[in-house]
Amino acid sequence: METHFARRMQRVSASAIMELIKTTAGGNFISFASGLPDPSLFPARELRDITDDILTRDDNNALQYGAAEGFAPLRDWVAQRLRERGLKATAENVLITSGSQQALDLVARALLDAGDTVLMESPSYLAAIQAFDSYEVNYVTLPMDEDGMDTAALEKALASCSPKLIFTLPNFQNPTGITLSAERRQRVAELAAAKDIPILEDDAYYDLRYDGEPLPPIASLAENRWAFYTGTFSKTIAPGIRVGWVYGDADLIARLAQLKQITDLHSNSLTQRIAYEFCARGKLPGQIEFLCRAYKEKRDAMLTALQHSMPPSVRWTHPQGGMFLFLTLPDGQDGDALLPHAMERGVVFVPGASFHPNGGGANTVRLNFVSPPHQDIERGITLLAQTIVSTGRA
Amino acid sequence: METHFARRMQRVSASAIMELIKTTAGGNFISFASGLPDPSLFPARELRDITDDILTRDDNNALQYGAAEGFAPLRDWVAQRLRERGLKATAENVLITSGSQQALDLVARALLDAGDTVLMESPSYLAAIQAFDSYEVNYVTLPMDEDGMDTAALEKALASCSPKLIFTLPNFQNPTGITLSAERRQRVAELAAAKDIPILEDDAYYDLRYDGEPLPPIASLAENRWAFYTGTFSKTIAPGIRVGWVYGDADLIARLAQLKQITDLHSNSLTQRIAYEFCARGKLPGQIEFLCRAYKEKRDAMLTALQHSMPPSVRWTHPQGGMFLFLTLPDGQDGDALLPHAMERGVVFVPGASFHPNGGGANTVRLNFVSPPHQDIERGITLLAQTIVSTGRA
Repeated sequence: METHFARRMQRVSASAIMELIKTTAGGNFISFASGLPDPSLFPARELRDITDDILTRDDNNALQYGAAEGFAPLRDWVAQRLRERGLKATAENVLITSGSQQALDLVARALLDAGDTVLMESPSYLAAIQAFDSYEVNYVTLPMDEDGMDTAALEKALASCSPKLIFTLPNFQNPTGITLSAERRQRVAELAAAKDIPILEDDAYYDLRYDGEPLPPIASLAENRWAFYTGTFSKTIAPGIRVGWVYGDADLIARLAQLKQITDLHSNSLTQRIAYEFCARGKLPGQIEFLCRAYKEKRDAMLTALQHSMPPSVRWTHPQGGMFLFLTLPDGQDGDALLPHAMERGVVFVPGASFHPNGGGANTVRLNFVSPPHQDIERGITLLAQTIVSTGRA
Repeated sequence: METHFARRMQRVSASAIMELIKTTAGGNFISFASGLPDPSLFPARELRDITDDILTRDDNNALQYGAAEGFAPLRDWVAQRLRERGLKATAENVLITSGSQQALDLVARALLDAGDTVLMESPSYLAAIQAFDSYEVNYVTLPMDEDGMDTAALEKALASCSPKLIFTLPNFQNPTGITLSAERRQRVAELAAAKDIPILEDDAYYDLRYDGEPLPPIASLAENRWAFYTGTFSKTIAPGIRVGWVYGDADLIARLAQLKQITDLHSNSLTQRIAYEFCARGKLPGQIEFLCRAYKEKRDAMLTALQHSMPPSVRWTHPQGGMFLFLTLPDGQDGDALLPHAMERGVVFVPGASFHPNGGGANTVRLNFVSPPHQDIERGITLLAQTIVSTGRA
């Protein structure tokens, strides 16, 4: 049946999460499963006004083909934003992509040959693992604690294998919510630079910080020509407009733009302008503040509910931002086995095993705290706790 | 300098056309070079009204993440449209893509291993060749005449090589403007089906027909589970919204959707809805009629100008639709060598050599007749003819 497919398709399969989300989408569940932001917080009215303006005064350009590199004023704006984060950036260092997923896939496509090794945290972002899988790579995984990737393990791994790429999510990692500490960022940057190893740093959640001070990107902490840093407007403006970016060395960005062009010619002309106008009109800081206030309340509601209802054998992370927290069930309990019981009670989550590229994590669970309505969080966590207690007893 | 790139990047490079278009964009040229439709014909007012409505009554969905397969009502609408073209199509046979370039790249990514052979017309669509290049394939090329690909050559090639894919543009091919005849379509369909060879049929220009009757897609003419057929709204609504599609067997489309998901998660939620609403409100037939009227006049203006001004040694195609026609210069004259002389006189075109994956075509030239303003066409062709005459004499 599959005879005509290329070999790489053996490593491409349905995402268990996407299937779960599809299956439960119509149902009457409290869902902690999705990767979705809260749509009630989208700046729809502003985006409508902006779009109306664009299609009135710049319709010829907004509807025409555009440059593979992206809309020039948006590249400029992103570069300026990245300078504020400590990166040496001009427009030439920025390629606009169709969401940051495309940025991850393009970097992987540019760098990864079959049989290459990717060094990464375990667990990590599922859709990145799936993209890497399609390039037929192997993984060496690094354990995490509350400060992120174990850099002693990284150093050891770098002594015994020659990875083609180090992949990391420094802020409020999907799926754990964990943030890489300042010291460890410095260490990762130095180790990669010393060994001349490319880094791909996926910082989709940078702006969604509810506590503590922003930390600098790894890419700003050591000279490494092959350090790539990705971001997105999906978590701050809206994901449906598909506007993200990748930062890197100007010559390497030019090479990625060639790859981008054969992939889909260029990113959406209209929605790049929408994102740019939203930023240029100074709307972004207010929107981020608005989101952070609402998401912080939801995070706190979930942490409080967990504190109140979970048995003492269950542990969880305390994210300083982002969208997810990660639960560790008592040894011997299994997220996949738990799910159908939870669904019977009306709650959905994502079992953590699939976030682990080399296996493990059977007793973990990812919870999205921003997507459900605030009033559902306490009840959902209570139902989940009851499921854990009754399943553990059985 | 390029040490960390994957091997495939050796086959990825800048597009000469894109570089030419960038270089001449600011200048005071009459440009026959671009691949752009005429932006003055975009239905901007309708699109503005539609977008306003969508962001008023469906903003939560239009700004949220969506399904990898595409916006369901749009898949349905495209399927119905494809049934009118003779294809057995339901929504499950349609994957929405970010323009049809992405459809071509996804099919290539799903099917092509390094070293595989692609059978294709020469010349052919440059950005498809570039996408195939990145999968490190070889080409067996088929000559063309005014009825399209030489099917006797196809039969011979199929006897002596085992291609992984047959690639063809059946209507008003880019770059030649040539249409594959009804008889040859039947022959291509039967030969591919008999040998169980996948076909990728890029039909971006189907709706832009100015003379003659529509011809059925090759995919409708024989049972071939591995026949893929792509289309786009780029030439009928607007390219900047990046909405295209690929049609195929439902199970294979589901596999392509998995690949689409790791590539960029899904196509733009907002602009998929814009395309759908434009179609659902019945605006597409009128827009197509409007475009065809305007583009037919431009084509006729170019054909008349060529007839009046070109020396008898120059030949050109007579497209029944689309955006391009193809000039063959006298033997010994070279499109690349001609270009700087033409630019001195204020005209730009694309030399034809780069459309030939295995070389050849040095004495050919692609002309876009829809992009320049009508009043520039005659003057531009006159200047081009003068350049050809004076360069030929030198």
